[in-house]
Amino acid sequence: MAEPISSYKKLLEKVKDIFILQSAAAIVYWDMETMMPPKGIKLRSLQLAMLSRIGHRMSTDPETGILLEKTMKHTEYDRLDAVQKRNLYLTKKHYDEQTKLPEKLVVETSKQEAITVDTWKKAKAAKDFFMFKPELEKLVDLKKKAAEILMKVKETATPYDALIDTFEPKMTSETISKVFEELKEGLILLLRKCEASSKRPDVSILKRRVPIEIQRKIAKSIAEFVGYDIDSKKAGGRIDETEHPFTTGYYDDVRITTHYYENKITSAIFSTLHEAGHALYDQNLKSEWIFQPVGTPCSYGFNESQSRFVENMVGRSREFWVYFLPKLKELTGSVLSDVDLDKFVRAVNQVKQSKIRVEADEVTYCLHIILRFNLERDLFADKITVAELPQIWNQSYKEYLGVDVENDSEGVMQDTHWASGLYGYFPSYALGNIYSGQILARMEKDLPEWRNQISKGNFRDVKQWLVKNVHGYGKLYDPTDLVKKIIGEGLGVKPYLNYLHEKYSKLYDF
Amino acid sequence: MAEPISSYKKLLEKVKDIFILQSAAAIVYWDMETMMPPKGIKLRSLQLAMLSRIGHRMSTDPETGILLEKTMKHTEYDRLDAVQKRNLYLTKKHYDEQTKLPEKLVVETSKQEAITVDTWKKAKAAKDFFMFKPELEKLVDLKKKAAEILMKVKETATPYDALIDTFEPKMTSETISKVFEELKEGLILLLRKCEASSKRPDVSILKRRVPIEIQRKIAKSIAEFVGYDIDSKKAGGRIDETEHPFTTGYYDDVRITTHYYENKITSAIFSTLHEAGHALYDQNLKSEWIFQPVGTPCSYGFNESQSRFVENMVGRSREFWVYFLPKLKELTGSVLSDVDLDKFVRAVNQVKQSKIRVEADEVTYCLHIILRFNLERDLFADKITVAELPQIWNQSYKEYLGVDVENDSEGVMQDTHWASGLYGYFPSYALGNIYSGQILARMEKDLPEWRNQISKGNFRDVKQWLVKNVHGYGKLYDPTDLVKKIIGEGLGVKPYLNYLHEKYSKLYDF
Repeated sequence: MAEPISSYKKLLEKVKDIFILQSAAAIVYWDMETMMPPKGIKLRSLQLAMLSRIGHRMSTDPETGILLEKTMKHTEYDRLDAVQKRNLYLTKKHYDEQTKLPEKLVVETSKQEAITVDTWKKAKAAKDFFMFKPELEKLVDLKKKAAEILMKVKETATPYDALIDTFEPKMTSETISKVFEELKEGLILLLRKCEASSKRPDVSILKRRVPIEIQRKIAKSIAEFVGYDIDSKKAGGRIDETEHPFTTGYYDDVRITTHYYENKITSAIFSTLHEAGHALYDQNLKSEWIFQPVGTPCSYGFNESQSRFVENMVGRSREFWVYFLPKLKELTGSVLSDVDLDKFVRAVNQVKQSKIRVEADEVTYCLHIILRFNLERDLFADKITVAELPQIWNQSYKEYLGVDVENDSEGVMQDTHWASGLYGYFPSYALGNIYSGQILARMEKDLPEWRNQISKGNFRDVKQWLVKNVHGYGKLYDPTDLVKKIIGEGLGVKPYLNYLHEKYSKLYDF
Repeated sequence: MAEPISSYKKLLEKVKDIFILQSAAAIVYWDMETMMPPKGIKLRSLQLAMLSRIGHRMSTDPETGILLEKTMKHTEYDRLDAVQKRNLYLTKKHYDEQTKLPEKLVVETSKQEAITVDTWKKAKAAKDFFMFKPELEKLVDLKKKAAEILMKVKETATPYDALIDTFEPKMTSETISKVFEELKEGLILLLRKCEASSKRPDVSILKRRVPIEIQRKIAKSIAEFVGYDIDSKKAGGRIDETEHPFTTGYYDDVRITTHYYENKITSAIFSTLHEAGHALYDQNLKSEWIFQPVGTPCSYGFNESQSRFVENMVGRSREFWVYFLPKLKELTGSVLSDVDLDKFVRAVNQVKQSKIRVEADEVTYCLHIILRFNLERDLFADKITVAELPQIWNQSYKEYLGVDVENDSEGVMQDTHWASGLYGYFPSYALGNIYSGQILARMEKDLPEWRNQISKGNFRDVKQWLVKNVHGYGKLYDPTDLVKKIIGEGLGVKPYLNYLHEKYSKLYDF
């Protein structure tokens, strides 16, 4: 690597400070969710607000703008290598995103987000969309203003595309519309076939009572399976408990949470696998890229591809349970002793129409996402209004999933995203699944024996493959380019649909 | 309260930010000690260094100096009330302390502290003072330079007094020398009497094995006794585990740690009581003073007075064990069933010459401190050199405590304080005990029934008395003035010596 020019070095020092501060703030946030005594909440929100204010000030330091320009116009700019140039590009992008919005709009939006979340909680409890509507309208208007400005900065085709770009760099709503349409058709077809099948999994076995203390051991055992170390003197992770599981941290300190329900053992199992998938990504970014923009996950969608890969492609595979069911039986004593492998695998892969996204199975999950994407896209294109959301939501659920939404709390108000100002975020969930299908297809060529290995409890080769082919690239490429890099062709839903078809045709006998 | 002038209000806003940041940094530190996966240590030290850098920048913001001057010279300054004036005084003091030392000296000192601590660890392991000496000399020289400068700023009589003032505002080495001399004589006399007694407590009962799981329940039960809430939905505390117990936090989120040893049940019991004493102080500062300098403990010594009060005057009292021994027996099953109250109380109050400060009992503890104080005082007055420390240390231990120090690891290198640059800190430990004696004497007048109450498991009145007469004053007064405020007379060792004499004459029959 060429000795970088001095303004680049200075710039990276500034970026390093931002990463250090953000990783400290992540600890303070994690503590709030897991450890903080309840009385501490008021002080905690002041602490988090202050850390975010300091972070914002660091991110918008005019010195950064000067250093960026100096470096990019430097006579020796061309001597920088690809990683260094990518760092510059990503730093500039982040700096522009942080500085091009008028401060007044940023402050107003953040205030409105707080109000909208608060109102959302009350309206959801009261099952009253009309309570929520005026605040949501205000927030959407502010977000539209921001999107208009960001569209110019980012040079995207539509305002909504500028929002998507925050989560899925360079992805467009046009591309998403196309692949989602194909995905939707494939999934609905699959869903119909599963429904038409005479096979009915017996999910009652998953409701048998397993004490939390034992579930903690199960979670730990699963973490060990994927090589997520929480115990040794070299451990770089932990598993804790929160209502909504999440992963946070940076490089050598990456923490996951899970949740335990006595009568729903799968909840802990699959949320642990899901979060461990995220954690592996964060833990296996190139160590020499620490404190650099390239040393972060590629995109929200790619991050999701890793969690879904571990949760579903591995964790809900027959082969995983060949290995893990005997262990699970051992850990749970007599609770599951009468359950055979086939019965268990069918139960954890039950396909079922549902109204609630977070409870959806592999076949229906993306349908929940696709209809949200369509609503967001049309909302930001002024084709529909906030007031129309509930009705279109309910129609879509009927059309896609065949269910009747009874009230807006289990309908349009079920997720926190829109109340929190997260627009353009939902597509990442489905894109993650699509990426995971493509990644799997590619991996199967390199590791034809992977299923066999998993059934013997060996995750090592799969993990190494993921580190080499996904994690190790960090944010060196935008997601579409990373897909090309990994599989040699562009974004496509076929591999994911093929994977689902192959799997569910066996489970449901079609 | 008069409406404060606007520069005062602005100043307090700046001070508030510092408190918020420091309380966030305290969480990050706490996490390092209790929760952090081992691999996270490198990142963590960068995070803590950054938060301390940001805190230093906030503390030395020239705007603060301007606002201070503006407020203090304001025509309406006299309309500020006593609390507001005290806030101004404390803010100015802190600002001066932070800004008057040349930055070069501050940076050099902090680097040397890191080196000295590192060398101390190695030298202690190798039992080699000569390895430690050159680094300690460098650090002492830097500290002397700082002390010379601070002496002028603080207008103290000696450089060492300027260091003491950081921990014990306005306390002087002259005063300390006088009271410590009297204390020393009293303690040595007491020690001789205990030694001469034919009574020998049977401490073997304290070495009986109690599983850690049960000790955790004991610690929780003790916390409940003092009203330190860790469980309810309104809890503002937690108990965790570290090798060296400590208390950290701010107002509604104050956390203690303790340690558990299977064969030393007293370790968890008394460290929990000790830290709970600190925690009660922090939790019961006036809520309207949050984010103000007056809303902090009076001094290190006063903080220690509260921990020692709860640990020793309450926790090692016969009356506490009247109440708690049956509970302890219940919690530990058959382990202590044959132990009677007298036997137990004698065992937890064993007086014994010892070489190690942190293991010392009530009678000998302050002797460890007094000899350290004498060494510090003479070192900073250039009466002795770093090279002479081990020899004088060993002589003092022989003279004060009658023990032969075999090597410098159990001698002059036993504590981390000097390696960490903490000079003027040790006296606070003994001052805390002295204060606690005076506080107790005063409390007995107001609450003649307190021992009776404790024996019934009622700590409420004692706690309320402490909140009203100690905690509630925060940092409104300097320690000597607070002593006067509480007991109506100045600093004196008689009450503490009387308390010890009364207690140990009974236990040791003299």
